[in-house]
Amino acid sequence: MHFQLLSHDGAARRTRLTLAHGVVDTPAFMPVGTCGSVKAMTPQMLVESGVQICLGNAFHLWLRPGLDVIADFKGLHGFMGWQGPVLTDSGGFQVFSLGKLRQISEEGVQFASPVDGARCFLTPEESMRIQHVLNSDVVMVFDECTPYPATLEEAADSMRLSLRWATRSRAEHRRLENTNALFGIVQGGVYEDLRDESLTALNDLGFEGLAIGGLSVGESKEAMQRVLTHTTPRLPADKPRYLMGVGTPEDLVYGVMNGIDLFDCVMPTRNARNGHLFTRYGDIRIKNAQYRHDEQALDASCGCYTCLHFSRAYLHHLYRCREILSSVLNSIHNLYFYQSLMNEMREAIIAGKFKDFRERFTASRSRQP
Amino acid sequence: MHFQLLSHDGAARRTRLTLAHGVVDTPAFMPVGTCGSVKAMTPQMLVESGVQICLGNAFHLWLRPGLDVIADFKGLHGFMGWQGPVLTDSGGFQVFSLGKLRQISEEGVQFASPVDGARCFLTPEESMRIQHVLNSDVVMVFDECTPYPATLEEAADSMRLSLRWATRSRAEHRRLENTNALFGIVQGGVYEDLRDESLTALNDLGFEGLAIGGLSVGESKEAMQRVLTHTTPRLPADKPRYLMGVGTPEDLVYGVMNGIDLFDCVMPTRNARNGHLFTRYGDIRIKNAQYRHDEQALDASCGCYTCLHFSRAYLHHLYRCREILSSVLNSIHNLYFYQSLMNEMREAIIAGKFKDFRERFTASRSRQP
Repeated sequence: MHFQLLSHDGAARRTRLTLAHGVVDTPAFMPVGTCGSVKAMTPQMLVESGVQICLGNAFHLWLRPGLDVIADFKGLHGFMGWQGPVLTDSGGFQVFSLGKLRQISEEGVQFASPVDGARCFLTPEESMRIQHVLNSDVVMVFDECTPYPATLEEAADSMRLSLRWATRSRAEHRRLENTNALFGIVQGGVYEDLRDESLTALNDLGFEGLAIGGLSVGESKEAMQRVLTHTTPRLPADKPRYLMGVGTPEDLVYGVMNGIDLFDCVMPTRNARNGHLFTRYGDIRIKNAQYRHDEQALDASCGCYTCLHFSRAYLHHLYRCREILSSVLNSIHNLYFYQSLMNEMREAIIAGKFKDFRERFTASRSRQP
Repeated sequence: MHFQLLSHDGAARRTRLTLAHGVVDTPAFMPVGTCGSVKAMTPQMLVESGVQICLGNAFHLWLRPGLDVIADFKGLHGFMGWQGPVLTDSGGFQVFSLGKLRQISEEGVQFASPVDGARCFLTPEESMRIQHVLNSDVVMVFDECTPYPATLEEAADSMRLSLRWATRSRAEHRRLENTNALFGIVQGGVYEDLRDESLTALNDLGFEGLAIGGLSVGESKEAMQRVLTHTTPRLPADKPRYLMGVGTPEDLVYGVMNGIDLFDCVMPTRNARNGHLFTRYGDIRIKNAQYRHDEQALDASCGCYTCLHFSRAYLHHLYRCREILSSVLNSIHNLYFYQSLMNEMREAIIAGKFKDFRERFTASRSRQP
C-alpha cells in the first residue's frame, strides 16, 4: 500500500491510497457488499456511481459460498466481478451482532452459523486466513466490538481483549506472508482514556492504517462526536484513517471535517430498499402519497441514471408495487448521492473551501425536498 | 400502423411493423411489464438485450398507479421511461385469472380488486378507455379467455361472447378517435370449427392485426400445436399475427415456423427469478449444487452482461443467498437469450435457411449444459 497526503483544509484531508487492485481517492465512502454483492447493484452500476472501493464481509463469505469457492477465483474480486480494491471486515462486528448466540473466550468466538446452525469458531488467526483467501486489499484485525452501554471496566476489558487479538492478527498476517495492508481498530467505547490506551498500543504494533471501531452502536450522536473529535487528531497523520460503520450524510461531513479518510455503511443501500432516499435538499420517503402524482426527478440537480430517467411518481409506484426495480433504481440514486457528496468534499478540500461547503451543505439539507 | 412483409421461408415470415413509438422487426418477442416494469430490468437493460417492444397490462395499471397518474405522463411510455412501442393486454386474461373472484355478464366482468378489495367493473368500453390513456401502440380487444377444459358448447358460448365484446371494442376504439392499432383475438378453445367461426367474424369487423388467444392455459402441447397449425395459415397474410402468452423457446420456434410474428410470455423473467436459466445447450437450474464451483459462464457463446462478467458459481451463490442481484443478472441473461433467438430466426428466414436453423436449434437444446 502506498499512501499520499495530497492536501488538507483544516483537519480535513485529501489523500490517495494505492492498493493492490487500484487507487482510492479519499475522503471515500465504501458501499457494503455483505455476501459478495452490493445489494441490488451490478459492478457496472457501482463504477457508474463513482465507487472506487467496496467492502466485503469475511464472516458472511466464510459461511457462504465458503473459502473453497472463493479460492477457485483467487479472491473476492474475481468471484464477484469487481475489478477495484476491496476492504474486508474481520468478522468481529458480525459475530458481535449475533448477540446471545455467541460465546466469547480468550481464544476466540464460538457461535452457531445463522445459515445452517453448524458450530463455528472464529479466531484472529482464522480471520486472517479468511481475509488472505479473499485477497482483500485492506485486511482488518479481528476485534471485539464493545457493546453499548458498557461500564468503564467492561469497556476496558473488551478493548484489552481486542488488543491481544490485534497482536495475534498482526502475527498471523505476517506468518501468512500476506502483502496486502492490515489495519488496526481503536476501541474503548465512549471513554477517551481507553481510546488513548488502545491507540498507543496499536501504534506500537504497527499497522498500515487505523480505524475507529465501536461507534454508531447505540450511543448518542453527542457521544459519538465527542469520541471522534478526541480520537481522530491523535491518529497518525501519515496513515489512512477509517471510521467504521458510519453513517448519515451529516456524519460523513462531520467525520471528514475531523480528518477521517474512509467510511462504510449499509445506510445508502438499506435505506434505498426501504424507500428512504437522500437528496441535497433533504430526504424523501418515496412511499408517501404526496409523490403519487409528482412528475419531478427525485433531485433535478442529480446526474444518476434514476434521476435522469424517472419521476418520483414512478418510483412511488414501483415501491408500492414492491417491484424489484424499486430497489435497483433507489440504490443507484442513494449510492450516487453518497459518492457525489464525497467527491464534492474532495474538491472543497483541494480548493481550501471546506468550511463554505459544509455551511452550504447544512443549509441545503435542512430544506424540504 | 404500417406493416411490411419483408421475406418468408416456407410459412415463416420476416416482417416489419412501424408503430407510433418506433419499429418492430418480427418475428419478435415482447417481455411482460405487468405493473409498468419488466421485473428486475431497467429500460436500458431492455434496450441492451435487443427488446424493441414491451407488453403492458391494462388491468394492473388501471388498479395501480391508476389512470389519473398515467394521464399525467401522457401514457405508459413516459411513466415507465420506455421510449419504444408498447402493446397492452386488454385485461381479459387477468380478470380470467382471478378465478372465482369474478362474475361475468353480457355487459362485462365484475370483480374485487386484488389490491384493496374494491368492487371493479371492467367492460370492453372501459378497457378501450384504459388503453387509450396508456397510449398503447397496439391495443387489444377485451375478450374472455375460454377456460380449459371446456365442452364444445361452453367454448362456443365463450367465443361468441368474445366476438360481441370485440364488436363493442372496435366501436369504442373508433368513438375515442384512437389512432393506434387495434388487434382482434381469435378464440374457440381447442375446437378448429370454433376458431374458424371466430376468425371469419373478426375479419368482417376489420382489425389492424390478429392474435391467437386462449392457448397455453392447460391444454396439452399436442392440442396447442394442432390449433396453431390449423389457425395460423388462415390468418390474413397482410396483417401481423400474434400468439398470446406463449412460451418456451421451443414454442417460439414452432410458432415462427407456422407463420407467427409476435409473442409474449412471463417465462424468461419469471423463470430467471426462480433460477431457471435458458441456454442454447439446454436449461440450467442454477440452485443445483453442481454449479457451486463452476467457473464457466452460463453460456460461453452468449454475449449478455451476465455471461460476459460472471460465473455459474457466482450466480449459484447469489441465488442461494436470495440476493436481489440474482434476479437482475438472471433476467438480463434470459431476456437476452430470448431476443437472440428471435434475431437468429429473423436472419435464418432472410437467408432462406429456417429449416437448417430449426434442426441445429433442436439438436443443440437437447444437449446437457
